Amino acid sequence: MESVSIDFDKAGGLVPAIIQDHRSGEVLMLGFMNSASLAETQSSGEVVFFSRSRNKLWKKGESSGHVLKVRELRVDCDADALLVRVEAIGPGVCHQGYRGCFFRKLESDGVAKIIEERTFAPETVYSRQKQEKKA
Amino acid sequence: MESVSIDFDKAGGLVPAIIQDHRSGEVLMLGFMNSASLAETQSSGEVVFFSRSRNKLWKKGESSGHVLKVRELRVDCDADALLVRVEAIGPGVCHQGYRGCFFRKLESDGVAKIIEERTFAPETVYSRQKQEKKA
Repeated sequence: MESVSIDFDKAGGLVPAIIQDHRSGEVLMLGFMNSASLAETQSSGEVVFFSRSRNKLWKKGESSGHVLKVRELRVDCDADALLVRVEAIGPGVCHQGYRGCFFRKLESDGVAKIIEERTFAPETVYSRQKQEKKA
Repeated sequence: MESVSIDFDKAGGLVPAIIQDHRSGEVLMLGFMNSASLAETQSSGEVVFFSRSRNKLWKKGESSGHVLKVRELRVDCDADALLVRVEAIGPGVCHQGYRGCFFRKLESDGVAKIIEERTFAPETVYSRQKQEKKA
């Protein structure tokens, strides 16, 4: 056991946070956290990102109710990336209506092919859809 | 199907690339890619990152032989993050001797607790250990 300082300096105050379903192992999305959002995530037990586009804290699920309950928080060897194993509440985390954001396969010719099924209709979930867009 | 442009601009020419074991679902590590390293990854079928600390392309496994063979490449909804599902050659990808880099649990008091077992002795693998350090 050792105390660890997360290295927020390497990327301008942010670290990438991988969100993984704690049961299925599916990688659901990637967001960024600053020191305040990590502290808020740890104290609330639900994932709070830092939105780069809106330049403020962004509680995942604030408009959709699709919150991410933290089951385990991990840090990598260099302390510059986080892995958050979660229970994802609701049918999906992606604002486009999928269970996770990585629903497209990238082919070598640059074509992205959808390989997952939609799990919900985003227009029925997001009254103000832009609020829930990824950072 | 649609052609997609990866959004390298959001983070200064780089996108985070999550490396996931294609069979177990384990998240092994996170690296960054620029346009050239993504192209090299796609053409070679083995993961090439961009090292932020060394400011150059970094073929994972170049000194250890622990290369990451690409089994599937995915892109997220905003095209600013990649998920690379791989077959990881060798006993582990982490320069500290673990199967993956996320071998520590982060407790709420800032203590990091090792929760995985070492799978190899790094000193026997890395003749020049620093070359294999994460970006």
